[in-house]
Amino acid sequence: MNLPEKIGRQTVKLTSSPRIIASAGVVGKKEGDGPLGNEFDRVFEDGRMNEDSWEKAESALQKCAVETALSKAGKTAEEIDIILAGDLLGQSMGTTFGVRGLSIPFLGLYGACSTMALSLATASLLVDSSAMNSVVAATSSHFCSAEKQFRLPLEYGGQRPPQAQWTATAAGAAVIGREGGKVKAECVTYGKMCDLGITDANNMGAAMAPAAADTIAVHFAETGLSPEYYDYIVTGDLGAVGSSLLYELLQKDYGLDIAERHKDCGLMIYDMNDRDVNSGGSGCGCSGAVVCTHFMRRLSSGELSRILFVGTGALLSQLSPLQGESIPSIAHAVVLAHSDK
Amino acid sequence: MNLPEKIGRQTVKLTSSPRIIASAGVVGKKEGDGPLGNEFDRVFEDGRMNEDSWEKAESALQKCAVETALSKAGKTAEEIDIILAGDLLGQSMGTTFGVRGLSIPFLGLYGACSTMALSLATASLLVDSSAMNSVVAATSSHFCSAEKQFRLPLEYGGQRPPQAQWTATAAGAAVIGREGGKVKAECVTYGKMCDLGITDANNMGAAMAPAAADTIAVHFAETGLSPEYYDYIVTGDLGAVGSSLLYELLQKDYGLDIAERHKDCGLMIYDMNDRDVNSGGSGCGCSGAVVCTHFMRRLSSGELSRILFVGTGALLSQLSPLQGESIPSIAHAVVLAHSDK
Repeated sequence: MNLPEKIGRQTVKLTSSPRIIASAGVVGKKEGDGPLGNEFDRVFEDGRMNEDSWEKAESALQKCAVETALSKAGKTAEEIDIILAGDLLGQSMGTTFGVRGLSIPFLGLYGACSTMALSLATASLLVDSSAMNSVVAATSSHFCSAEKQFRLPLEYGGQRPPQAQWTATAAGAAVIGREGGKVKAECVTYGKMCDLGITDANNMGAAMAPAAADTIAVHFAETGLSPEYYDYIVTGDLGAVGSSLLYELLQKDYGLDIAERHKDCGLMIYDMNDRDVNSGGSGCGCSGAVVCTHFMRRLSSGELSRILFVGTGALLSQLSPLQGESIPSIAHAVVLAHSDK
Repeated sequence: MNLPEKIGRQTVKLTSSPRIIASAGVVGKKEGDGPLGNEFDRVFEDGRMNEDSWEKAESALQKCAVETALSKAGKTAEEIDIILAGDLLGQSMGTTFGVRGLSIPFLGLYGACSTMALSLATASLLVDSSAMNSVVAATSSHFCSAEKQFRLPLEYGGQRPPQAQWTATAAGAAVIGREGGKVKAECVTYGKMCDLGITDANNMGAAMAPAAADTIAVHFAETGLSPEYYDYIVTGDLGAVGSSLLYELLQKDYGLDIAERHKDCGLMIYDMNDRDVNSGGSGCGCSGAVVCTHFMRRLSSGELSRILFVGTGALLSQLSPLQGESIPSIAHAVVLAHSDK
C-alpha cells in the first residue's frame, strides 16, 4: 500500500483511491421545493423536525443524514472508526447533539461553511494513510439557528439586503472507506485564511471569494493542472455576489478563467427567482447536501468524471462583527472522481 | 517509511516517531503566580494583553504561544504545512483571530478542553502518515471570555460553587515534525462522546470523568498495555472532583487503578489553597500550557520516559444548558515519550 504523497505545501495526493462508499443529503421544506428537491434523501416538511429548539432541529437533521448515509453504505455505527463533523453553531452544537447517541469516536472540526470539504478531505486522508478504515464526514446548518446566532432574531422580521445569502436547512454525510461505491477521493488541498477586510456579516460571498481564489490557485499551482482537467469546479457557497468576485480575482491575480466550468452549490439549491434567497444559499449543509446527493450521483454514474469541490467558510463568530472585526475566510478543496477515471 | 498502524477501533500506533520539535506555554498573571509559574515561556501581567476585548486577549495569547513555539523550533511560519487549533469560544474565535495573520494553512478543530490532546494527536498522525512535514498544534482559553460565554457576566460577581473549575488564562502550542527535539509521539487514541446526564455547567469534572475513563480503558484494552507502562497518566483537566470520580469509574468498571500514576493539569496549575479555584483549573489552555512546558521539559530531559496525555473536553454549548441538555464529554489521548526510550 502506498502513502499519501505530499506534492506541495497545501496539497496531498491520495494514492490508494479511498472511496466514498455512500452519501446522503437531507433538507428542509424550502430546499425540498428547490430545483434539486427530488435528489435529496429526505425532505422535512416541519422546520422544527419535531424538536423544541432550532438547534435541536439542526441536530436531528445531521443525525438523519449520518444514519441515512450509513444505511446506504450498509454499515452500522459500530463499523465506523471515527466521525469527522462540525457546523456553524457555537461549540458545534448541531454536531455534538446530533452525533452524541451514535457511539462513534468523534473528531470535531471547525471550518464554518467549508466543513463538508474539510471533513471529506480529512476523512479521505485518514483512510489513505491507513490510520482509519471507515470514516464518516458530516455537517449541517439550519436557517433559523444560524440567523438567530449571527444576525437578528427571526421574530424581528428584519429585511435582508440583496447581497445576503440564505443559510440552508440541510445536512450532508458521506461514508469513506477502502472499497465500495463508484466515487473516489484523489487529492486534497487545505486552505489558508484570507481576509480582505469585509466587515458586513450579510455579505459572506465577498468575504469568502478571496479564500476560494487562493485555494483554487494554489491547487492548480501545486498540482500543475489546469481548470480543464475537471468537469466542474464546485464551490460551496459563494452565491451570485461571491461567484462573480471569484471569477474576477482568479482572472486578475492568477490569469485563471474558471467561469465556464464553475458551479456554486449556493446557486443550485434554490430557485433563484425566489426573492428571499437574494444572492443564493449558504451554510455548511448547503454544499453538504448538494455534493452528497447531486454531485455524488453524477460522479457515481460516470456522467461526470472528476470535480474539484472547494468548500468556502466565513470564520466570523457571533461576537466578532460586534467587536468591529473583519471576516476571515477559508476554503478547503478535495478532488472527487468516478472510480474508473 | 512505515505507515500508521491501526491497532484497534480507536487507537493508531505511530511508526515513524514524529517529533515534538519544540513547544511553548504562555499564561496570565494568576497562572504565573501558581506552582508552575517559572516554567511558562511568558506570563502576561495584564489580563487584557493590551487588547480591547477578552476574546481578542485570548487571540493574542494563542498567537504568542504559536510564535514562541515556532521560534524555539527555529522555524518560520512559511515552513509550517498546517496548523491544527481550536478553543472554547463560539466559532473558535480565539483561534481564528489568533492565527489569522500567520498565513499558515489552517485545519480548525473542536474538542473543547480536549483540544491540546486532539491537536497533538492529529498533528502527529498527519506527520506519521507522510501527508505533512511540519505541523503546529495549538489551543487557548481565557477565564474572562469563558465565564462570559458559559456562565455569568463577570460584572455580576456571582459566587462559584466548590465543584466549579477555574478556566485558565493560558495557551499552548507545539511544533511537530520528522526530526528534532527529544520528545516523540508514539500512539493516539481518539475518544467517543460520553454523557451520564450531568446538567450542571459548573461541574465539568463530573461531566468529563466518564469520557476520560472510557478513553483510558479503551487505550489499555486496544494496546494490551497496563498503567505501569507510563510514568504518568496526565489528564487535562478534571480537577479534584473529576479526578476522584475517574479513579472510581476505572476501578469499578474496568478494574484499573491509576491513582498513583495520575496527574491532572487542573490540579497542578494553581495553588490549590487559593479558594477561588475551587476544584482546580480547566480550559483548553490549562493542559495546553502545562503539557507544552512542564511535561515536555521533563520528557525532553529524560526525567520522564513516557506519559499518556488524556485531554478531556466538555462539549456543552453556551445554549445547551439553557435548553435543559446534559453535557456530552469526550477525551482524546496521545502517548508522548523521550526520543530514546
